[in-house]
Amino acid sequence: MSISLEKIQATLDAKTKPPQSLGKLEEIALRLGYIQQTLTPRADRQRICVFAGSHGIAAEGVSAYPEAVTAQMVHNFLNGGAAINALCRAQGIELRVVDSGVDDGLSPLPDAAPHFKRRSGAAKGTVSFLARAAMSGEECAAAMTCGAEEVDAAVADGVEVMGIGEMGIGNTTSAAAVICGITGYAPAQLTGRGTGVDERVWKHKCEVVRAACVHHKENCRSGMDWLAAVGGFEIAAMVGAVLRAYEKRLPIVVDGFICGAAVVVAHAINPQVLEVCFFSHCSMEAGHPLVLSFLKQEAILDLRLRLGEGSGAALAMPLLKAAAYMIADMASFDSAGVSQKEP
Amino acid sequence: MSISLEKIQATLDAKTKPPQSLGKLEEIALRLGYIQQTLTPRADRQRICVFAGSHGIAAEGVSAYPEAVTAQMVHNFLNGGAAINALCRAQGIELRVVDSGVDDGLSPLPDAAPHFKRRSGAAKGTVSFLARAAMSGEECAAAMTCGAEEVDAAVADGVEVMGIGEMGIGNTTSAAAVICGITGYAPAQLTGRGTGVDERVWKHKCEVVRAACVHHKENCRSGMDWLAAVGGFEIAAMVGAVLRAYEKRLPIVVDGFICGAAVVVAHAINPQVLEVCFFSHCSMEAGHPLVLSFLKQEAILDLRLRLGEGSGAALAMPLLKAAAYMIADMASFDSAGVSQKEP
Repeated sequence: MSISLEKIQATLDAKTKPPQSLGKLEEIALRLGYIQQTLTPRADRQRICVFAGSHGIAAEGVSAYPEAVTAQMVHNFLNGGAAINALCRAQGIELRVVDSGVDDGLSPLPDAAPHFKRRSGAAKGTVSFLARAAMSGEECAAAMTCGAEEVDAAVADGVEVMGIGEMGIGNTTSAAAVICGITGYAPAQLTGRGTGVDERVWKHKCEVVRAACVHHKENCRSGMDWLAAVGGFEIAAMVGAVLRAYEKRLPIVVDGFICGAAVVVAHAINPQVLEVCFFSHCSMEAGHPLVLSFLKQEAILDLRLRLGEGSGAALAMPLLKAAAYMIADMASFDSAGVSQKEP
Repeated sequence: MSISLEKIQATLDAKTKPPQSLGKLEEIALRLGYIQQTLTPRADRQRICVFAGSHGIAAEGVSAYPEAVTAQMVHNFLNGGAAINALCRAQGIELRVVDSGVDDGLSPLPDAAPHFKRRSGAAKGTVSFLARAAMSGEECAAAMTCGAEEVDAAVADGVEVMGIGEMGIGNTTSAAAVICGITGYAPAQLTGRGTGVDERVWKHKCEVVRAACVHHKENCRSGMDWLAAVGGFEIAAMVGAVLRAYEKRLPIVVDGFICGAAVVVAHAINPQVLEVCFFSHCSMEAGHPLVLSFLKQEAILDLRLRLGEGSGAALAMPLLKAAAYMIADMASFDSAGVSQKEP
């Protein structure tokens, strides 16, 4: 790299403010400059991709909501009525919705709609992973490609920062299993309340995660193995997106726990992906702080969120824009004629 | 009030998301709706007022920067080169700069400039408050009126959310003294590193705050007394702004420690002002967490900021906009045809 972190830091320190006085915002500016290899990074054009997938594991009674909600919420996204729609409108963020493998048998999704991508030929949801693999290796690779293509499209469109989010009833169970498999953390540490299950369902959910990890352990040698064994199509798509974003040097704003699981997989494949990842918030989902600690990353926000959909990414993305403006636009002590610190 | 908190909460709970899953954002939406007395609050038009004042106490050697920086930074604000300029541009926030009593002898400020207000007839800075009152009662009242008028102007202009920030070399010392006087906390608890003083200067700063509190204690009976005795013109202006904002039901986004001192004074005068105050962030200035705890308030962000100028307010204000869009625009379970939680 021709523009070093030191050079960007020196630029920040010459700005008219006490050194480091903008805290995390300066760290964001430093990283944006390094990723984009410029002293004047840009984060104006922002896009969030919400990846949706249906989960066979939902049939095991691990969620507070019926499985049909996955497809219903995709309709809600397309009609503009979900939280992520409102948040993107508020922040001037483009929204794309990607059907990464949704069972829409009860409420058929359109083949074409603005800002909507259907993955042709995809299975309509994973298989319950208690006794079988959630998806085949081929299905997993195809889902990853679908995510990578979203990054290619974003770069081609001039997007400067991309956020990732997800929708999939049952996917906190799948994410917990993926992370347990890769990190070795205990199922009860990583299994949370998801959309709001009670104590009884939570215990059952822990048992499902535990049983799945035991069942698949023998056949899983890598992060990719665990992804196919117990993951989901939306998680696989986000793994592909993160890996491709690193290749393309596109800053990625990661939403909560399920997106975190995707980064854990991508990190297992290529640890350098963390260079382009910004962790938007630390969620209320029990396992999320562990994910951040495993990856040695600090979240930008802590707003007690537990929604998903990319909602935390949408709330953090204005801070990336602010950080870019700060380093790119602020005057230096010299240029503004402001006196420096007294000796 | 005709629209109750319960009614707004019920509206939030009918939206297509698990109840309370947007955490602090829902609390912000709830409060915005209550302040504005509507189920569809608005926070689109946002303005930050930065109040600047010079401090006689700066002559006691309590800051890392020379006193001249106060006027130099006002020039920087007017030229668009400071952090708050960049952050407001990034977030689409209007910026106004108010000379609440700046000593501009070495770098004269213009009498007129866009988005700049000079307070005519104001003293050019306070008196060192070690042995005398920082300002007279009349000067204090006039500075408060200057802040109140900014709120009136904002309301007249259709501003929906107003942020407050400040500039004034020496004002962490003044703010610490004001808060010590009113709350009884110890000077060493409330005195911080400001723009970055070293250990030796910090100890001296603590001693200045302690001596000032001892000197003025006998004559101070109220928050307003402490404000005049050891405050600053920009702090007084913000006290006036907060009091008027409560009367006008205008949501106020409070920046860091010095703005917090203004709220402590306003709260001593009328505890209900907290209804319209949003505390943008918890700063690195040592006394700020104590201020929040004294007022029983939680900050929205924690970004390790210690700059002032309204920078934390600028970074939190997009979240108020997001909260307003969320409650105003999201579909309900009924309207979107999304299934509710399973029984």
